[in-house]
Amino acid sequence: MKARIKTQITGFVAGIALSGIAVAFEPLPAQPPVPVDNPMNAEKIELGRMLYFDPRLSVDGTVSCNSCHNVMTNGTDNRPVSVGVNGQKGGRNAPTVFNAAFLSAQFWDGRAATLEDQAKGPILNPIEMGMPSEKVVIDRLKKIPEYVDRFETVFGEGGLTYDNIAKAIAAYERTLVTPNSPFDRYLRGDENAISESAKRGMKLMEKLGCTACHNGPNLAGPDLPTGQGFFQKFPIYTDNEYVKKYDLLADKGRYEVTKKEEDKHMWRVPTLRNVALTAPYFHNGSVQTLDEAVRVMAKTQLNRDLSRKEVRDLVAFLESLTGEIPPQVMPKLPQTEGFSVVGDQ
Amino acid sequence: MKARIKTQITGFVAGIALSGIAVAFEPLPAQPPVPVDNPMNAEKIELGRMLYFDPRLSVDGTVSCNSCHNVMTNGTDNRPVSVGVNGQKGGRNAPTVFNAAFLSAQFWDGRAATLEDQAKGPILNPIEMGMPSEKVVIDRLKKIPEYVDRFETVFGEGGLTYDNIAKAIAAYERTLVTPNSPFDRYLRGDENAISESAKRGMKLMEKLGCTACHNGPNLAGPDLPTGQGFFQKFPIYTDNEYVKKYDLLADKGRYEVTKKEEDKHMWRVPTLRNVALTAPYFHNGSVQTLDEAVRVMAKTQLNRDLSRKEVRDLVAFLESLTGEIPPQVMPKLPQTEGFSVVGDQ
Repeated sequence: MKARIKTQITGFVAGIALSGIAVAFEPLPAQPPVPVDNPMNAEKIELGRMLYFDPRLSVDGTVSCNSCHNVMTNGTDNRPVSVGVNGQKGGRNAPTVFNAAFLSAQFWDGRAATLEDQAKGPILNPIEMGMPSEKVVIDRLKKIPEYVDRFETVFGEGGLTYDNIAKAIAAYERTLVTPNSPFDRYLRGDENAISESAKRGMKLMEKLGCTACHNGPNLAGPDLPTGQGFFQKFPIYTDNEYVKKYDLLADKGRYEVTKKEEDKHMWRVPTLRNVALTAPYFHNGSVQTLDEAVRVMAKTQLNRDLSRKEVRDLVAFLESLTGEIPPQVMPKLPQTEGFSVVGDQ
Repeated sequence: MKARIKTQITGFVAGIALSGIAVAFEPLPAQPPVPVDNPMNAEKIELGRMLYFDPRLSVDGTVSCNSCHNVMTNGTDNRPVSVGVNGQKGGRNAPTVFNAAFLSAQFWDGRAATLEDQAKGPILNPIEMGMPSEKVVIDRLKKIPEYVDRFETVFGEGGLTYDNIAKAIAAYERTLVTPNSPFDRYLRGDENAISESAKRGMKLMEKLGCTACHNGPNLAGPDLPTGQGFFQKFPIYTDNEYVKKYDLLADKGRYEVTKKEEDKHMWRVPTLRNVALTAPYFHNGSVQTLDEAVRVMAKTQLNRDLSRKEVRDLVAFLESLTGEIPPQVMPKLPQTEGFSVVGDQ
């Protein structure tokens, strides 16, 4: 599998431990791991940006990566489930693209090891972008001269391949990190960066046991080898109103991929970064608000009923995880003269 | 009706006449007319840009103005007809937003006098953005604090109204002009800005009679008072293969709005600027390529069968009308914390 360049965070962790903050928490590194076989450079990132925003990667020219993972709205579409070509609805909530580069496996069920592997999925998924085959994707992009040129510049002769489409998109996605949240500034020593309520929430996270899973720089679990997703069962406690109300058992999670009994209702632990901005919540997007999501998690994972104050503090903590979205440049998509590659759809 | 500040182009026209180029042609002014009751300023343009890109203006949060009038792809979606909420297809090809500010009436049938009037339509159209009422639009935006603030800053207290949504969007759209096409540079004196073929095409435009309608700075007819669209019949000659093949009589055009007999198959003359980049062609998007569109126009409007060379020259001329798209800044859309305004859709 692909090697990862690990960011050294030991110094921060030591500092955190000294100031009495649990080692479960670490600031978000400025750069995500980069696989050795897909180094980043400006041309590749720009090509990836174009592809990410290009609806011509969908069969009828209506859906781009950005349609569901919208970088203008926190890397998601803020819908329960996304809408693909022909108005088709998906089965799961679109995870945010921001900081996805820090995850050791992609998709809710971790079925893709890398961003590169992930990017190949939706383009060919019949209810997402609906392209019939890799060949049709390549044939279409070959009709757009600037793309052919750009792929050759970035990847060499014959560079326009399905693998390289995914590599370029992944390179762009590795720029989508949101550092310097109030909580990161707090971890780096600014005591006033977060509210007292958020500080109580932070301590509650550990006391209740949330940090058993939501730890590490992305609050999505430990830094595992690429492809080895950090999975947990959800819901654990099923005999409560929430499981029924929000239909949390209908989707069997990772089991749908592996068909192994032990993977039933196992999910990749999602990041908590920017969670205040990525409503609605959970794999099926069934929970509308962050405070309700906190109550659901406490009940289904810890069998705890939280007080109003506890919920408020936890939400204040989660709100402190909203980072700085890097300024986004709008691509100018390559043109075709006198015809459209989706004009016959 | 709204007054317009007319751009003075007399000097250019005189210059053109002197150099032997027909007065049918004028360079595109750098600025479009601005209505006196909606002056432009930076805050209003920025608010309009946000609204233009915000899919939360559609009922299910999937369609923005930019979905169909995509400024990354020449102000259109390059599809025969656009796709709105729930996968619904519209009846007509989405006109480009670029240089729409120069048109004296909007929509293919001219049913809106101004960009402001136009912007109000698609949001409430059930097959486009599908919002059930102006009130629902306003109620939704009121849940987004930054929008409330921005409307107050731009329009004063209580500024968040449906009319002002349209005003902000129109102000942004008036920045979407594409000056300095090769043909504009030619008109301004650069003899080498366009090819010899394009020059022959330019002369053919006049000789054949295309410029009877496609004249003026936008090649969409004379500069008429706001709301008084420049309408022409299409197709005029109906006894030919094209009318049947491309189903050009199915849609009765302006008649669908006025129900007047004389408006049957009357259409607002579309701009030719950037036409090489806005395939497919005509009100129903039925013609895939620019050369075929040229043949169709010659036959249906002038009863002429063009030679291959004539088509080639006309296409070369039309390609010289591709202007410079101004660099686009990606908006960061206002956020809601802990919930989504489209999360229950």
